[in-house]
Amino acid sequence: MAGPRGEYRKSAARRAQILDAAVEVFARTGYTGSSVSEIARVVGVSQTAVLHHFEGGKTALLMAVLEQRDALAVGALADHHGRAFIAELVEISRRQAAQRGVVQLYHVLSTEATAPDHPAHEYFRTRIGRILEGTTQAFAEARDAGDLKPGVDPHHAALSTLAMVEGLEMLWLNGLDVDMAEDIRHHIDQFLAAPL
Amino acid sequence: MAGPRGEYRKSAARRAQILDAAVEVFARTGYTGSSVSEIARVVGVSQTAVLHHFEGGKTALLMAVLEQRDALAVGALADHHGRAFIAELVEISRRQAAQRGVVQLYHVLSTEATAPDHPAHEYFRTRIGRILEGTTQAFAEARDAGDLKPGVDPHHAALSTLAMVEGLEMLWLNGLDVDMAEDIRHHIDQFLAAPL
Repeated sequence: MAGPRGEYRKSAARRAQILDAAVEVFARTGYTGSSVSEIARVVGVSQTAVLHHFEGGKTALLMAVLEQRDALAVGALADHHGRAFIAELVEISRRQAAQRGVVQLYHVLSTEATAPDHPAHEYFRTRIGRILEGTTQAFAEARDAGDLKPGVDPHHAALSTLAMVEGLEMLWLNGLDVDMAEDIRHHIDQFLAAPL
Repeated sequence: MAGPRGEYRKSAARRAQILDAAVEVFARTGYTGSSVSEIARVVGVSQTAVLHHFEGGKTALLMAVLEQRDALAVGALADHHGRAFIAELVEISRRQAAQRGVVQLYHVLSTEATAPDHPAHEYFRTRIGRILEGTTQAFAEARDAGDLKPGVDPHHAALSTLAMVEGLEMLWLNGLDVDMAEDIRHHIDQFLAAPL
């Protein structure tokens, strides 16, 4: 017998299903080319059911997808500092290789969102700025702990590492034979006093 | 009085106008989100006029845009070998910084095209494979001429340089303060016996 708590669980499960479908559809056709009706079709519910969970429609779905995914990555990094934070970047890359759809989603959406009138334009600008800030801080902590080679600039090392992560993901998505985690580890090692 | 040659010139000029508009519209909304009618509207002609020049419609426009742009880059690289080819990669980046729309176009389309059913999927896979091949060959020529540091592997140096180019473009498109040509030069210098 489904009491109020059973109803709540069913509703939360349906919301999660809709988010999974949105990830799939956005990754396949981009935000611009996607529709709420296509997402509803993938779940097997009506458009009205989707709009019941996401009143703001397609834009609300986009922001929910991004926030859910980023919460996972922020969680993985929050407890790490200095060299451990830098090492975690390699582990995140290793996990990405098993989640092609998610990597594709981020690249499709973040390139689309470089257009100033895209609903996620500010979101991605702010996001990459924060990631650069956090990574720069981790390299600065590593420097202060004596974990960097002499003369390495934390800001440059962070920018270069993020560019390498983005670029390797792109080459991997485009079908090149790339071991992302291994290549990022190799790239980072040039900055470290002792290799990862 | 416009004779046959005048008509031909007018037709070629109109075709070029349509291609410019396609670059603009594809870069703004991606291939999936674009329409022939929007491209026609930007030029100020009818859809029929666009289809007169590009019988295959939106797909034909996409391929024409990509082939035109790639012909420019291939032309810039064709006469260079070894260290001169590698130096030209930096110059291409310097020129890219003045063509935000084109860089955006490539990133939007090449990420969209990571979906296997996208009309340009094979085009981008083949393209990046050839670029990697050409760049690997240039690093191998540089090695044979004694222009690389001892122990540098041409394939790894090429892959790493292409990833850096792609990644820096992404960070730049997303609003970070990046000097693409300078950062790529700095990245390449780690492989060279004497800096660029």
